[in-house]
Amino acid sequence: MERILPFRFDEKEGVFWLLDQRRLPLEEVVVPVRTAKEMAEAIRAMVVRGAPAIGVSAAFGMVLAHLRGENLEEADRLLRQSRPTAVNLFHALDRMRPHWGNLEGSLKEALAIWHEVEETERAISQHGAKVLRGQVLTHCNTGPLATGGYGTALGAIVEAFRQGRVSHVWVDETRPYLQGARLTAYELQKAGVPATLITDNMAGFLMARGRVDVVLVGVDRMALNGDFANKIGTYALAVLAHHHGIPFYAALPLSSVDPGLESGEGIPIEERPAEEVLELRGMRLAPPGFPAYHPAFDVTPHRYLTGIVTERGILYPPFDEALRHALGLA
Amino acid sequence: MERILPFRFDEKEGVFWLLDQRRLPLEEVVVPVRTAKEMAEAIRAMVVRGAPAIGVSAAFGMVLAHLRGENLEEADRLLRQSRPTAVNLFHALDRMRPHWGNLEGSLKEALAIWHEVEETERAISQHGAKVLRGQVLTHCNTGPLATGGYGTALGAIVEAFRQGRVSHVWVDETRPYLQGARLTAYELQKAGVPATLITDNMAGFLMARGRVDVVLVGVDRMALNGDFANKIGTYALAVLAHHHGIPFYAALPLSSVDPGLESGEGIPIEERPAEEVLELRGMRLAPPGFPAYHPAFDVTPHRYLTGIVTERGILYPPFDEALRHALGLA
Repeated sequence: MERILPFRFDEKEGVFWLLDQRRLPLEEVVVPVRTAKEMAEAIRAMVVRGAPAIGVSAAFGMVLAHLRGENLEEADRLLRQSRPTAVNLFHALDRMRPHWGNLEGSLKEALAIWHEVEETERAISQHGAKVLRGQVLTHCNTGPLATGGYGTALGAIVEAFRQGRVSHVWVDETRPYLQGARLTAYELQKAGVPATLITDNMAGFLMARGRVDVVLVGVDRMALNGDFANKIGTYALAVLAHHHGIPFYAALPLSSVDPGLESGEGIPIEERPAEEVLELRGMRLAPPGFPAYHPAFDVTPHRYLTGIVTERGILYPPFDEALRHALGLA
Repeated sequence: MERILPFRFDEKEGVFWLLDQRRLPLEEVVVPVRTAKEMAEAIRAMVVRGAPAIGVSAAFGMVLAHLRGENLEEADRLLRQSRPTAVNLFHALDRMRPHWGNLEGSLKEALAIWHEVEETERAISQHGAKVLRGQVLTHCNTGPLATGGYGTALGAIVEAFRQGRVSHVWVDETRPYLQGARLTAYELQKAGVPATLITDNMAGFLMARGRVDVVLVGVDRMALNGDFANKIGTYALAVLAHHHGIPFYAALPLSSVDPGLESGEGIPIEERPAEEVLELRGMRLAPPGFPAYHPAFDVTPHRYLTGIVTERGILYPPFDEALRHALGLA
């Protein structure tokens, strides 16, 4: 059992090393990041991805700016522009600002941000493990590579396997980006958890055959009523689980709940380039000139959720009350 | 508007030309087949695929055996072994046997088999068009490339577009083999039908947004009660359509109904090599050593079907009665 981390900080040399996630799972290559400018470029190019992991990386980007004597205003600006939709990025940079000009304070804050990700995910994993059993199906990538901690949904799955509650994991390949095939498979293999890759269109068939006991997915953004956006394909899984009477859970840190959103209707769906559906690593899949549609996320209404796994425990319906209570809004 | 055919017979030269479907949609290459042995090899290698197209090709394989003076017993055996699960292959070869030793009779029978495919699919297309409207979603490949005629589900979709009933087609890419992205997209593009490629996991989201009016799929094999096997992912689409109140039809020639099967429970599911999920054109998608599961088909219970499109018209529930009547068994 190997612990996977998407990065490590070499304090002596003042270098932040990133595991290049674009090259996984076929190559494990680490790249050195020495300046905030290089960090912004690495985030933009998706050398590191996953909202919590981006937040930690950006915080260390500000530490590097101090070490290298970069202009802090400029460093902050470059980092903020690197992945404009990742909310953790802005939270992390906001937290670094009071420590500008203070290398020691800045490093302490970056380490604190990282540590909090780990603590939150340790709690999510412990709580989540309790609702898992037998064969679990998951979608996309929610493991340590995406967070720098233990992972959300995948953290709970690995913990449940360690406790002997989960025997096997079905991994949706997660088209078009194949985060499941490339990253979740890699993480489960490293963690020694028995798992099998399937194409996304096989999940319903496995459910009908009684080969899925629980579905657990991550969350990109959740509204106050429990509706949530997540990787495209999550909604179809939720409907299929509902139809087959299979428990369906979502795992997230409470920081991913948007207190400004009453329901999922307000969540915009990011449409990404059609090329990402039409091509795979530069290889054309469809005839030249044929159009494709690429919504990167979908919204799952809360009525399909059995429960929500958070660092404060499992929330059950009515979710609006449970979420407001957990967030201290009620 | 171009008519696509997977093959043509050059009677003067005695050569059967196959459009190499392995190289579509990026290259349009035709390869000459001069002997039954070459034909068996081409079928095995999937230069030509799709049950009806394989049946016609095998029949012409026997014509070539006559032309080249091959041993007919041996030619028949090689062709039967080329794709052991394709029932049309055996039917076609059974029909050729009475004409052994008679080149003219043999050619006439092969042309008759081809002509019957065309006539059956013309009728399926006409009947099927009546139940289609607006935006249609389809899965896998059911067009002329798979049959040598007009296609089953795709024949009806193209006909409905010509009649102005259908405005747009959503094409499931159909992992792992990408028959939708490669072949259906190619056929719709050639037919001039407005269409958009999606990954299989987007269909549910489109249904929820009201962007799918009808789903129409093909059939690999149907039981007497209407349960049917088709490409993996069909079952999930059926459940999703049912959940969203969207009409869901299957199109097939009545020869694809197995009168020996009372229900879908008797249909074995072909499990194909895991490599076909793990690799795409030789490119590894998952970490080395990671396992995958590859059921090539799934079974959809008849209760999810709105109707069955056949050459004798649309059948409605109760399907067991309707099918027995259409087959002349009742």
